[in-house]
Amino acid sequence: MSEGRGEAGDAPGPREAGPDGEGGGPKVVALGGGHGLHASLSALRRVTSHLTAVVTVADDGGSSGRLRGEFGVVPPGDLRMALAALCGDDEWGRTWSEVVQHRFRSDGDLSGHAVGNLLIVALWELLGDTVAGLDWVGRLLGAHGRVLPMASVPLDLVAEVELDGSFTTVRGQVACALTPGRVTAVSLVPPDPPACPETVHAVREADWVVFGPGSWFTSVLPHLKVPQLAEALHTSRARRAVILNLAPQPGETDGFSPQKHLEVLRAHAPELTVDVVLADTGVDGEREELEKAAIAMGARLVTASVAASDGSPRHDPRRLASVLSEIFREKR
Amino acid sequence: MSEGRGEAGDAPGPREAGPDGEGGGPKVVALGGGHGLHASLSALRRVTSHLTAVVTVADDGGSSGRLRGEFGVVPPGDLRMALAALCGDDEWGRTWSEVVQHRFRSDGDLSGHAVGNLLIVALWELLGDTVAGLDWVGRLLGAHGRVLPMASVPLDLVAEVELDGSFTTVRGQVACALTPGRVTAVSLVPPDPPACPETVHAVREADWVVFGPGSWFTSVLPHLKVPQLAEALHTSRARRAVILNLAPQPGETDGFSPQKHLEVLRAHAPELTVDVVLADTGVDGEREELEKAAIAMGARLVTASVAASDGSPRHDPRRLASVLSEIFREKR
Repeated sequence: MSEGRGEAGDAPGPREAGPDGEGGGPKVVALGGGHGLHASLSALRRVTSHLTAVVTVADDGGSSGRLRGEFGVVPPGDLRMALAALCGDDEWGRTWSEVVQHRFRSDGDLSGHAVGNLLIVALWELLGDTVAGLDWVGRLLGAHGRVLPMASVPLDLVAEVELDGSFTTVRGQVACALTPGRVTAVSLVPPDPPACPETVHAVREADWVVFGPGSWFTSVLPHLKVPQLAEALHTSRARRAVILNLAPQPGETDGFSPQKHLEVLRAHAPELTVDVVLADTGVDGEREELEKAAIAMGARLVTASVAASDGSPRHDPRRLASVLSEIFREKR
Repeated sequence: MSEGRGEAGDAPGPREAGPDGEGGGPKVVALGGGHGLHASLSALRRVTSHLTAVVTVADDGGSSGRLRGEFGVVPPGDLRMALAALCGDDEWGRTWSEVVQHRFRSDGDLSGHAVGNLLIVALWELLGDTVAGLDWVGRLLGAHGRVLPMASVPLDLVAEVELDGSFTTVRGQVACALTPGRVTAVSLVPPDPPACPETVHAVREADWVVFGPGSWFTSVLPHLKVPQLAEALHTSRARRAVILNLAPQPGETDGFSPQKHLEVLRAHAPELTVDVVLADTGVDGEREELEKAAIAMGARLVTASVAASDGSPRHDPRRLASVLSEIFREKR
């Protein structure tokens, strides 16, 4: 235990993004939610000490949905998962990461709740401040970065879904995931939610902003629908990288090619320019088409072996870290 | 925040009791539960760096009772309160103490649950080890000592209650608290629960064992009904101090004089010898009777001003610490 205590003593607080952060590397803001953001953060925390995750807050299912209903709070689940991804590899980080990710299983009221969600909501109730609560959980975990919400209020996603040529509009992330077909567009309710000021500040001060990987319509694009955040993303001096998914997502992007992902991004944010599009070497068969789509957004295409070696459609954190590190080192 | 991080870095782990602990002071084991144990620990953590709380695990009400029912675990509430009492006075300790003590209030499923209870149960589920789970929560809090359960299994209290000359037997701590009258005796179901080995070890290695203050029948006496723990308490080379309550407790010790508390303790543990009985100067009117009862257990009586100055029947942690520090310094 004395060893663990020493490790904890080394990293009791988050290495904050922004000008006050310690350590090296560029100031990076990663946008997303869920497992996709977990993947980019697991890589990025190896590349920079100035890391801020900006997380979608539109989930309405599971533990998050129940807490949102019971307490009227921003859904904590994606925030929790981002915090877990920023935990260190030492005993302290591994243990607290497992604790916050742990879900109760029982026949009773608590079943399905993730422990970290409950902890985050408790901090919010106690401090009355969304960002301060997340910072405190980050300190507990010794998180290698900061986690912020993309908006200060809970949001609902509204998705247009196409199936066999007919279109339906569904409201809510759960409904969106359950409705068969392909999403064609996404918007938010309320349509002009207040951005989190710390989030806007982080984007303005960033050297790099990273979009994806992740559920394209429900985790990556929603950030661009928060007006103040979108404005900061368009006008920040930061360079912008898009990490493409390794495979389409059933029920959301069925049959989408990599270039289709970029076209959808462009359709949702016509003013957005991108500097780098990163895809796995698996796309090399359709490289030409993808390159065209990248160039249309102002970006160059980088392909590299970033998929997990087990063949699953997951990014390997170390491979992704290595490629991102190279990209970030290049001069403008 | 940088200031807070520094403080957190200073105290990331518990100052463990036992031979491996750091810092000064005698090895002290404090027995009890609930608010009484919170009071003794709040004092003792100022007196020694070698502090172990041994906590009753017979609660069946509130958040603890619900968790016991839902997960079959030892009730965590008194353990949580003891951990909160061991938090430091710095920003880290104050914040996490408030977090673990925080109770959800809503119209939903979580209402009434204390956050620390949920955290403790999660650690137990994850680690499958009661003591290791408590140690990890202690590390989170930077607890100034260790918290252990008095037994390894959830217990039920069985109390004999007298009202107007007629006796009834009630089972469960809630029933005991709700039944009007005075408790006359208490026992456990199961009658021979396994003691926690770390607890027995701590008692054997202690310089001082402290009984009370607290709910006499439901928090102080139950420890003496766990056979292995009682045996360790009887045979340990440790000296023994009893801290008397400042007032009788409605529904449990109505009308009990201070000496009656000692008589009940003696009746429940005839073999137990005591070295010091500590009472507030408020007892000086019946000092002679109390002194007799103390001497009958082998103890000398110490009276000192240890009550809170607001007149409430609570111990003042600093006053109590000062008196205990003097008592512990005396040679055998």
